[in-house]
Amino acid sequence: MLAAVKTAHEYLDSLRARKLRLFVDGALVTSPVDHPKVRPAINAVAATYALAHDERHAHLATSHSDLVGRRVNRFTALFRERDDLLRKLELQRALGRLTGTCFQRCVGLDGVNALFLATHGRGDAHARFVTWLRGVQERDEMLNGAMTDPKGDRSKRPPEQADHYVRVVERRSDGVVIRGAKIHQTGAANAHQILVMPGQALRPGEEDFAIACALPVDAEGVTMVLGRQPSDERRGGPDAGNARFGGQECVVLFDDVFVPRDHVFLDGDVEACAELVSAFAGYHRASYGGCKPGNLDVLIGAADLVTRQNGVRRASHVRDKLTQMAHLTETIHAIGVGASAKGKVHASGVWQVDTVLANVCKHHVTSLPYEIVRLAEDLAGGAMSTLPSIADLDHPELGETLRLVAGGRERASALRLIESMAYGAGSVPFRIECMHGAGSPQAQRVVLEREIDWDAKVARARVLAGLDPDPDLDGV
Amino acid sequence: MLAAVKTAHEYLDSLRARKLRLFVDGALVTSPVDHPKVRPAINAVAATYALAHDERHAHLATSHSDLVGRRVNRFTALFRERDDLLRKLELQRALGRLTGTCFQRCVGLDGVNALFLATHGRGDAHARFVTWLRGVQERDEMLNGAMTDPKGDRSKRPPEQADHYVRVVERRSDGVVIRGAKIHQTGAANAHQILVMPGQALRPGEEDFAIACALPVDAEGVTMVLGRQPSDERRGGPDAGNARFGGQECVVLFDDVFVPRDHVFLDGDVEACAELVSAFAGYHRASYGGCKPGNLDVLIGAADLVTRQNGVRRASHVRDKLTQMAHLTETIHAIGVGASAKGKVHASGVWQVDTVLANVCKHHVTSLPYEIVRLAEDLAGGAMSTLPSIADLDHPELGETLRLVAGGRERASALRLIESMAYGAGSVPFRIECMHGAGSPQAQRVVLEREIDWDAKVARARVLAGLDPDPDLDGV
Amino acid sequence: MLAAVKTAHEYLDSLRARKLRLFVDGALVTSPVDHPKVRPAINAVAATYALAHDERHAHLATSHSDLVGRRVNRFTALFRERDDLLRKLELQRALGRLTGTCFQRCVGLDGVNALFLATHGRGDAHARFVTWLRGVQERDEMLNGAMTDPKGDRSKRPPEQADHYVRVVERRSDGVVIRGAKIHQTGAANAHQILVMPGQALRPGEEDFAIACALPVDAEGVTMVLGRQPSDERRGGPDAGNARFGGQECVVLFDDVFVPRDHVFLDGDVEACAELVSAFAGYHRASYGGCKPGNLDVLIGAADLVTRQNGVRRASHVRDKLTQMAHLTETIHAIGVGASAKGKVHASGVWQVDTVLANVCKHHVTSLPYEIVRLAEDLAGGAMSTLPSIADLDHPELGETLRLVAGGRERASALRLIESMAYGAGSVPFRIECMHGAGSPQAQRVVLEREIDWDAKVARARVLAGLDPDPDLDGV
Amino acid sequence: MLAAVKTAHEYLDSLRARKLRLFVDGALVTSPVDHPKVRPAINAVAATYALAHDERHAHLATSHSDLVGRRVNRFTALFRERDDLLRKLELQRALGRLTGTCFQRCVGLDGVNALFLATHGRGDAHARFVTWLRGVQERDEMLNGAMTDPKGDRSKRPPEQADHYVRVVERRSDGVVIRGAKIHQTGAANAHQILVMPGQALRPGEEDFAIACALPVDAEGVTMVLGRQPSDERRGGPDAGNARFGGQECVVLFDDVFVPRDHVFLDGDVEACAELVSAFAGYHRASYGGCKPGNLDVLIGAADLVTRQNGVRRASHVRDKLTQMAHLTETIHAIGVGASAKGKVHASGVWQVDTVLANVCKHHVTSLPYEIVRLAEDLAGGAMSTLPSIADLDHPELGETLRLVAGGRERASALRLIESMAYGAGSVPFRIECMHGAGSPQAQRVVLEREIDWDAKVARARVLAGLDPDPDLDGV
Repeated sequence: MLAAVKTAHEYLDSLRARKLRLFVDGALVTSPVDHPKVRPAINAVAATYALAHDERHAHLATSHSDLVGRRVNRFTALFRERDDLLRKLELQRALGRLTGTCFQRCVGLDGVNALFLATHGRGDAHARFVTWLRGVQERDEMLNGAMTDPKGDRSKRPPEQADHYVRVVERRSDGVVIRGAKIHQTGAANAHQILVMPGQALRPGEEDFAIACALPVDAEGVTMVLGRQPSDERRGGPDAGNARFGGQECVVLFDDVFVPRDHVFLDGDVEACAELVSAFAGYHRASYGGCKPGNLDVLIGAADLVTRQNGVRRASHVRDKLTQMAHLTETIHAIGVGASAKGKVHASGVWQVDTVLANVCKHHVTSLPYEIVRLAEDLAGGAMSTLPSIADLDHPELGETLRLVAGGRERASALRLIESMAYGAGSVPFRIECMHGAGSPQAQRVVLEREIDWDAKVARARVLAGLDPDPDLDGV
Repeated sequence: MLAAVKTAHEYLDSLRARKLRLFVDGALVTSPVDHPKVRPAINAVAATYALAHDERHAHLATSHSDLVGRRVNRFTALFRERDDLLRKLELQRALGRLTGTCFQRCVGLDGVNALFLATHGRGDAHARFVTWLRGVQERDEMLNGAMTDPKGDRSKRPPEQADHYVRVVERRSDGVVIRGAKIHQTGAANAHQILVMPGQALRPGEEDFAIACALPVDAEGVTMVLGRQPSDERRGGPDAGNARFGGQECVVLFDDVFVPRDHVFLDGDVEACAELVSAFAGYHRASYGGCKPGNLDVLIGAADLVTRQNGVRRASHVRDKLTQMAHLTETIHAIGVGASAKGKVHASGVWQVDTVLANVCKHHVTSLPYEIVRLAEDLAGGAMSTLPSIADLDHPELGETLRLVAGGRERASALRLIESMAYGAGSVPFRIECMHGAGSPQAQRVVLEREIDWDAKVARARVLAGLDPDPDLDGV
Repeated sequence: MLAAVKTAHEYLDSLRARKLRLFVDGALVTSPVDHPKVRPAINAVAATYALAHDERHAHLATSHSDLVGRRVNRFTALFRERDDLLRKLELQRALGRLTGTCFQRCVGLDGVNALFLATHGRGDAHARFVTWLRGVQERDEMLNGAMTDPKGDRSKRPPEQADHYVRVVERRSDGVVIRGAKIHQTGAANAHQILVMPGQALRPGEEDFAIACALPVDAEGVTMVLGRQPSDERRGGPDAGNARFGGQECVVLFDDVFVPRDHVFLDGDVEACAELVSAFAGYHRASYGGCKPGNLDVLIGAADLVTRQNGVRRASHVRDKLTQMAHLTETIHAIGVGASAKGKVHASGVWQVDTVLANVCKHHVTSLPYEIVRLAEDLAGGAMSTLPSIADLDHPELGETLRLVAGGRERASALRLIESMAYGAGSVPFRIECMHGAGSPQAQRVVLEREIDWDAKVARARVLAGLDPDPDLDGV
Repeated sequence: MLAAVKTAHEYLDSLRARKLRLFVDGALVTSPVDHPKVRPAINAVAATYALAHDERHAHLATSHSDLVGRRVNRFTALFRERDDLLRKLELQRALGRLTGTCFQRCVGLDGVNALFLATHGRGDAHARFVTWLRGVQERDEMLNGAMTDPKGDRSKRPPEQADHYVRVVERRSDGVVIRGAKIHQTGAANAHQILVMPGQALRPGEEDFAIACALPVDAEGVTMVLGRQPSDERRGGPDAGNARFGGQECVVLFDDVFVPRDHVFLDGDVEACAELVSAFAGYHRASYGGCKPGNLDVLIGAADLVTRQNGVRRASHVRDKLTQMAHLTETIHAIGVGASAKGKVHASGVWQVDTVLANVCKHHVTSLPYEIVRLAEDLAGGAMSTLPSIADLDHPELGETLRLVAGGRERASALRLIESMAYGAGSVPFRIECMHGAGSPQAQRVVLEREIDWDAKVARARVLAGLDPDPDLDGV
C-alpha cells in the first residue's frame, strides 16, 4: 500500500491549500498554481508524484522507508544501500527525459540525506530531525532545500556582509528567529516546506549562520519572488516551446521568521555544518549525472527530429553530430553512475557518493551540455531564431505562405522546443543550472585539488624513475 | 565634403519615408521606426551612418569611390586595394564594440562587391550594375542583401521545392517578375533597397533561380515578417539588457514583384551566379573576423565588470578565464585579418579575400564564441538567470531588500546585458548568427576540403619518407 | 591455499621452459627473458603474478573459480557477479599505477570471458572450452589473446585479402590447420598460450575465418617478430625512463599450424563469432577505464615531481593544470566504473558491461590521455627533450656542470620518465594503445550510433513539443 | 648578383672549417658534419641556403639589404617594410614543408632584428651592432641565437642561481669575459656565430646578466653538448622516418669566454634588454605561424598517404579528420599572418608584429599541433608503433611475409615518417618546440593579460548596460 505517496492531483490540491506570499514581476500573485509563469514548474514537480503511481516507474520512484515502515516517494527517502544511489540516478534520468526540465525535488532529497548524516551522533538533533522527516515522508512533501545565500562581495565573510545572509537573530526557549535571504531557490514556490541549510562552510565566530531548520513555505515573514526567465512572456502561449513543463528559481526572503525548537536541527555547530555542506555537495554534484542526461535526451531527440524534417538525417556529418551529442550525454551519465557505484556507507547507515567522482561529474556538466546545445543549434539551422511568431504562422492572410516557408507547422514546433532549451525559459533549469547548480565550476576544482592524493602519485613516479626503491614490487 | 554620406538622423528620416509592409507578431505595423521590437535594430544601423561623421572613425567608416569621385560610406564602397579589406575589418570591430550587436550592413557591402566581380566581363550587366551602385553610393543607402531561400527538404533541388524559392516567373521586355521568399534577412526592414541574389550554386536547368536584381523594400508585392527573438517582449523595458541596440532577421515575401530591366543584373547565367555565391561567401565569412570580436569585446567587458562587482576580479581562475575569453576573441580577429592580408585582386579590380582562410575564420566563429559565452556565464554566476525582474527590484516595498540581495542595481544591469547576449534578443544577431550566418559549419568544411591541395601535401610526404626523389632540394 | 596461483619467479621460470621462435631487429633471439628489449614487458606481466601474493592486493588480484574450486589469479577468472567487473577495474588501476605501463593480461582475460559466453549453448564447444580454461586456471597461464588480422586494404573483405588473414586451411579429424598472421599482439612473446579469435564480425561465406582455438606459443609453425618501439635502443641503458617495466606488441605468424580438436572452440560458426567479437569489444573497451588511469597516475606524479623540482608547484597555473590532468584521468576511470556498474548478466552466468558506456569509455581514451600528455609536456618544460644523454651528465669532465645545468640528476631522471611515456618506448603501450587498442575511434562511434535508441528520443521530443499526446504523463 | 648569398655546398664547406668542440653521448665528436646524429640538422639549415638560389623561392629567400647594398639571404635581413614580415612567414612555411622539420635560422633572424631596435638610440652600441651585422650579411652566416639560461629553481632570481646563468664575470678595456650556459640552443652546432642575448627581463642589480654580444662558435672556452632526441639511435638507419632532415638543440657552455668590445652590443643596460626580450618574443611567437604549418603540411600529407594505402581515403570520417587537420593548420598560419599584417614600424625603421596577435599565435601552437598529431595517429593506425623494424621487413626468410603483413614497404615508410614526427627525433623540433619554443604557454597568457585593455572593454559594457552615458554614439 502506498498511503504515504501522493498522486499528482493530491499534490496540486495541497499546493492550493497554502497561503504563499509570492511576487511575480513586481506584483503579488494570488493563485500561483494557475499563474502561467508558475504552473509549468509545478507540472514538473507533479511528475515526481505521478511516476510513483506508474507501474513502469514505481520501483524507481518509490523506496522502502524504515522510518515509516512502508514505501515512500523516493524523493523523501534515505539512501539505505548502494543501489539506492544508482536507482536515484535512473529515476532522475527518467524524469529528466519525461519533463525535459528540472523537476525540483533533488535539493530536498539530497538535503535530507546530508542532514541525516550530519546530525548523526550529535545528541538529540538527530532524533528531532528523524521525527520531522517521518512526517515529511508520511505527507509526501515537496521540500525547498534552501542553501545559497546572496554573496555580494565574495571577498567578505558572512558576518561582514549586509543583512541578507540567513542567520539566527534571536534565540528563544521555544525556538529561533531567522533573518536574511536565500537565492537561486529551485522550486521554492512549489514546495510545502523550506529546509534551511547553511550555504557554505563556516568558521568559529560565524555560529549564527550555522543554522539548519525547517518551516512551512507560508510561515509568517516568508516572502518569495519569482526569478525572471528568458522568454518567460511566452509562457502559456504558442511560442513557448516546452509548454507544459518548466523550472523555477525564487528569491526567498526571511523577515524575522520564527522556527519552533522541534524544527531546528543544527544551530551553531560549525563542524556539523561543514559535514552537511560537504555531503550535500557530493550528493548533488553526482545528481547531475541523472537529470541532465534526461534533459539532453530530449534535446537530442528534438535535433534529430528537425534533421528528419529537413531531409538530412542520413548525411554523414549529421549522423556524426548526433552521435557526438549522445556520446557526451552518456559521458555525464556514466560518471554519475561511477560516483554512485564507488559510494561508501556513512556511520549513520546512509550511503555517500565518491567525492572525487561526484565533482568530476558536475565539472563536466559545466561544459559538455554547452557543447551539446551548440551542436543542437548547428543541426537546427538558423530558422530556430529567425522564425516569425506562431501568430504569424497562423495569420489568416500570411499563414499559409509562412508555414510553407517555415517548413511546416510541426517543424516550427520542434524548433521552438530547441529554442526554449537553448535560449528560452527552459535554459535556466537546464543550461544555467548545469553551470552553477551545486556550485560553480571553480568550486569543483577546489574540491578536486584538495581530495587528490598528489603525494602518492609523486611517490610512485619516483620509484618508476629509479629514484626510490620499490615498496610494492621489489621482487619483480 | 561628404555629400554622399548620410547622418544618422537623415537615415532615420529616410526610413520613415518608406511605405513598408511589415508584420510583427501577426499584426501589420504602421510605423516600424517607432516599434519597440524594431527600433533597436534601426539604431544599430544608424551607428554605421553616425561613424562616418565621427572624426575618430571617418577614415574607417568612409572610403573614396571612383564611381562618384568622392568619399562614400564604406558600406557602399568597393574593395579597391588590399587595405580596404583590412579597414573593413577594423570598422566592423569598432561597430561591433560600439553597438554590441549586428549592424546589418555587411551583407549589402559584400553583395555589392561580389556582384561587381561576378558581372564583370559579362556584357552590359556590369554597366547596369555600376550605374545602379553609383546611385546607392550617392544616396548612401542601406541594402538588404537577400540570399537565403527557404530550403525545406534539403535533399531536393530548387525546382523540386514548393513555390517559396525566389525565381523568375515571367520575363517581359521591360523587366522580370519574381516570386518566392527569402529568410534570415538581416536588417531587411531597416533597408532602402533589396539586393536579391541566388542563395546557392545552381545547375543547368535551374536558370529561373539564377536571378540577381535590386528593388525598393516597399515595392508592390513585397511583404516582410519580423522574426521572433528570445525575450523580445522585454524590448523597450527595463529588463532588456542592451536596451538601445539590436539585430533583426525577417522573412521577405515576394508576391510576383516586378523588377525593371535596369535593376536586373543577372538572369539565368548559372556560371556567373556560381562566382557570385562563392565570392560573397568568401567576403562574408571573413567579415566575422571583424564584427564578432567587437561584440565579444562587450561580453568580455560585461563579465569583467561583474567580477569586479563581486570582488573576485583578482582571483587567479577569474583572470585566467577572462584572458582565455580575450585569447579566443583575438583568434577570430587574427584569422579574419589573415584572410584579408592574403587577399588577391580580381580581374575586375576588386580585391578578394583568401578563400581557405576566410572559411577557417567563419568555421571558428561557429564554436569559439560559444565557449566565450560559456565562460561569461561562468563568471556571471547564477544570478544572471535567477534574478527577479527589475520591476521587483524597483518595488516600493520589496525593492530595497531585493537590490541588496541582487548585489546592487548596477550589478543587475550588468547581468541583464550578459543575459541579453547569451539568452536574450541579443543572442540572435550574436550567437546564432555566428553559427549560421554566411553558411552553417558544414558549408565551410565542404569548401575547405575542396580548396586544400591534398596531392601536394602527399607528394612532399612521399619525398620526405624516401619514396620519391626530391624535386626541390635534391642538392642538399 | 593458492596452489593455482603462480609467483612472479615461477612465471619467469616457466617462460624459460618455452622454445619460442622470436625475432628482434632481424635476428633470432635465443633467450627472450634476458633480452633488454623484451625483459621490461615480461616484468610488467610478472607484476600480475606478484600482486596475487601481496596481501594488500590479493582480494583484487585473485578470484574464486567454480571451475577449479579455489582462488585463481583474476586474469584467468570468469566475471561471476557484477562486482567482479568493478574489482577487475580496481586491479587494473593498481597495476597500471605500479608498472606505469601495460601488463598485457587483459586481452586474455576478456577473451576468456567472451569465449565462455559465445560458446554457451552451442553444443560441446562450451565443454571443450571449459575444460581448457580449467587447465589455464590451474597452471595460471598468461594468454596471448590474438584477434587483429593485418587488414591491408580496408575496402576488401577477408577472403579477398592475401594470405595473411588467419583462417583454417585444412580440417582433419583430429583438428585443424591454420595459416596467416595476427598483428598488434600485446605481450605475445611473454605468454604461454595463444588464444586465437576472429578479429572482426564475419559474413556467411567467410566461415574459414571464423576460428577460435588455443595453442602453445611455441607450437610448430609459430613465429613471432617484436614490434619496434620509439627509443627502444635505450632499453637497459640509463636514458630508458621507466627502466623496469614496459609493454610489447608482436607480429605472430602462423605457418600452417596444427591445432588439435580439443583446443578448437569455434570453427565456422559466424554467428557465435559475432557474439564473441562484440562481447570482447565491450569488455576490453571498459578495461581502459582501469589500466590507463593507473598509467596516468604515474604521469601526473612525474609532472608534479618536476614542478616541485622547479620550485613552481604552488603557481596557480601549475596547480590548475595538475588538477585538470587528474580531472581527466578520473573521468576515464569513472566511465569505466559506470560501464561496469550498469552491467547485465548473460544467459551463461557471466556478467557483461554496458555496451554504450563501454564504448563511451574507450572513445574518451582516444583523446583525453593525449591532452593529459600535452599538459605533462607543458609542465615538464623543454628540457625533457633537449637534455643531453645521461652519459654526458656522468662525463668525468663535463658532468658536474651539466648536472647543474640540468637541474640535478634527479630532475633528469624525472624528465626521462615523462619522455619515455610521451615519446619513448613507454608511449606504445600507453598512448598508441589508448588510440587503437580494442578498436580505433571510429569503431566506437559506429557502435554508439548503432546502440543509441534514436527513435525513443525523437518520440519524447515530439511529445514535449506538443506534436503528440503524452503516453507517460498524461495526467499531469 | 648574389655574392652575399652562400649556396648549400658553400655552407657545408664553411662548417668544416670550424674547430667546434661538440660532445655527443658523452664523447667528443671530431667531424660534426658527418655525424649521423648531427647531419640531418645541418641538412635542414642547408635548405635555407639552397632556396636562396632556387628561382621559384629566391623572392622569398632573399631580401634587399640597405646595409650592404644588395640582396642577402633573408635570414640575415632586417624587416624594412610590413611585407617583409609576411614574406618571412611564407618563406618559413615553404621551408617547413620542404624539410618537415626546424631549419634553425629563425632565432638568429629574430634576434638580429630585436637587437637592431633595442640598440637603436642607445649610443654607439647601435653602430657596433650594424657593423657586425653587415659582416654577417656579407658572409651569409648562420647564427645561434642564444637566449635561454638554465633556470633551475624558478622561484630564484638570476643572481641567486648557481653559476650557470650567462653573465659577465670580468670587464676589460678590450672586451668582456662571460661565463655560464645556454640551453635549448636550436641549431647551435650548425652555426658560425653565437649571438648571446639575455633570456628574460632583468631588474636593477642584475646588470651582469644584461649582456648581448656575438662570438664564433669555436671561440676559446665554448663547449657544446648535443641534446638527446627520442629514437636518435635510428638516425642514419632505415627506421629513421624523415632520414634527411632534422632539428637540433644543444647545451652551450661558456667557460670564461672573452668577447672583444666590438662584438659587445649591450652590457648592463637593463632597459634595453627588456625591449630586446619583448621584441624578440613578439617576432618569434609569430614565427610559428610560418614554420609549423609547413611541418604540419607534411604530417597531413603522410596521414593522407596512409589512408590511401589503406583504401579508406574516401570514408567520411577520414575526410573529416583530414579536413580538420588542415583547418587547424591554416588557423595557426592565419594568425601568424594576422600578427604580421597588423605590424607597426619602430622608431629604428624596423617593423614589429602585433604583440597580442603574436602571442595568440604561439599560444595556439602549444595545443593545436597536438590535436593534429593525435588525428594523424588515429588515421595512421596502430601499425605505426607495432611494426617490426625495417631489418625484419628486409629479412631474407621472413621479409616477404612481413612486408605483406605490413601492407607493403611503402606503407611502412609512410608510417615511419609519421612516427618520427609524433614520437621520434622529429618530434623535438616539431612538437616540443611548439610547446616551449619562444616561451611556454603561461608566458603567452601573461603577456596577453598584460596587453589587453580590460578597462576599455568594461567601459563600453557599462555604456551598453545603461550605466554610463555614451561618449561615442550619443546621437543615435
